[in-house]
Amino acid sequence: MAEKKKTTIVLFSGDYDKAMAAYIIANGAAAYDHEVTIFHTFWGLNALRKDENIMVKKGFIEKMFAKLMPRGADKMGLSKMNFAGFGPKMIKDIMKKHNAMPLPQLIEMAQEQEIKLVACTMTMDLLGLKQEELMENIEYAGVAAYLADAEEGNVNLFI
Amino acid sequence: MAEKKKTTIVLFSGDYDKAMAAYIIANGAAAYDHEVTIFHTFWGLNALRKDENIMVKKGFIEKMFAKLMPRGADKMGLSKMNFAGFGPKMIKDIMKKHNAMPLPQLIEMAQEQEIKLVACTMTMDLLGLKQEELMENIEYAGVAAYLADAEEGNVNLFI
Amino acid sequence: MAEKKKTTIVLFSGDYDKAMAAYIIANGAAAYDHEVTIFHTFWGLNALRKDENIMVKKGFIEKMFAKLMPRGADKMGLSKMNFAGFGPKMIKDIMKKHNAMPLPQLIEMAQEQEIKLVACTMTMDLLGLKQEELMENIEYAGVAAYLADAEEGNVNLFI
Repeated sequence: MAEKKKTTIVLFSGDYDKAMAAYIIANGAAAYDHEVTIFHTFWGLNALRKDENIMVKKGFIEKMFAKLMPRGADKMGLSKMNFAGFGPKMIKDIMKKHNAMPLPQLIEMAQEQEIKLVACTMTMDLLGLKQEELMENIEYAGVAAYLADAEEGNVNLFI
Repeated sequence: MAEKKKTTIVLFSGDYDKAMAAYIIANGAAAYDHEVTIFHTFWGLNALRKDENIMVKKGFIEKMFAKLMPRGADKMGLSKMNFAGFGPKMIKDIMKKHNAMPLPQLIEMAQEQEIKLVACTMTMDLLGLKQEELMENIEYAGVAAYLADAEEGNVNLFI
Repeated sequence: MAEKKKTTIVLFSGDYDKAMAAYIIANGAAAYDHEVTIFHTFWGLNALRKDENIMVKKGFIEKMFAKLMPRGADKMGLSKMNFAGFGPKMIKDIMKKHNAMPLPQLIEMAQEQEIKLVACTMTMDLLGLKQEELMENIEYAGVAAYLADAEEGNVNLFI
């Protein structure tokens, strides 16, 4: 039996458009029967945040980061033409018109397709994010686990 | 007969410097006899725009995007030190001094080397770009075609 | 004897956080016995700059670039939430608290692990950087050398 092909994406970026690109490629690869992992690190972790305010004990800087970073995929900005927050609204309107899936649904679809969503524990510490603040059904790991997936990979991307 | 090596680049970025890096790697790989594809998506599509104003019917938001995005490679800004548009001019002056190829010529060279230039149809829709507005001799495809190229690839990059 | 696995990273970005990600992945891969290369191009070259002011003869624009670009890893800004320079300070304070390695130490560790640090000569020319201004024990090469490493690579990233 042939081994499954592998796609492994590091999602570093916290931009709506870049996260969309990551999840579209990931869902496409899963549809073509790849084993797919998205490893969320740094600002990319924000795509996994729940959108409610979760009460957890934090230091001052961690609180500030938590407050200033977007709470979940739907709140992320664009890497270009963000227009003080109007850009994402515009893109979402157009996406609706073209029946394109918004990011939160792309993430749901990824979970349905059993794409492995991983949160980088080292950068969670740095940004002061706790497991309670992130979505359910994701994994927690570090760079060693990422490399174990990536070194066997056919498609390896850093987004 | 040995199979050709493959280089597949997703050009997501609309920055002059990042597009330059993409095209320099692509042209280098083609010179080393790789089969090379550049898949232009989101802001990277702007590298393929013609520089004249093409009249096409568009909705309001699409018109606005079309107006605000750079028309062609030569009009793109820098990812760092853009200085309200002076950065690219400075870089271009230095490039001239060092006989380095400007981006529009790098793209021409890519076409002469038969690098496959692909425009992502899904994001063309989102940004309201029509085929009439893009260069000749490029291909139109979606994420499935990208994955078919990338999964056999030796060098896969997201830029 | 099995061949060593290879990880090859293009570090294009001059952001502290992105460079950190690059060096963490690189150091991890070296620990797993990969042959690792980081190819520094464009703004990524700043990670290799010495922090003192080196006197070298330069043209006007090159002098200006040299002045405006960060001198060494420790002076680089964040890609998000830079807060006019306060972001990096905050991140560094948190890193200290969590005993995470700051970027200059990650680079030192990379050298100890014999990761090949390469400076792209073509973009050094463009940005007006001279060998005297960069760290010791690095290599100088162009896109051809990068491709020779990358085409055999297991993990290829553009950061």
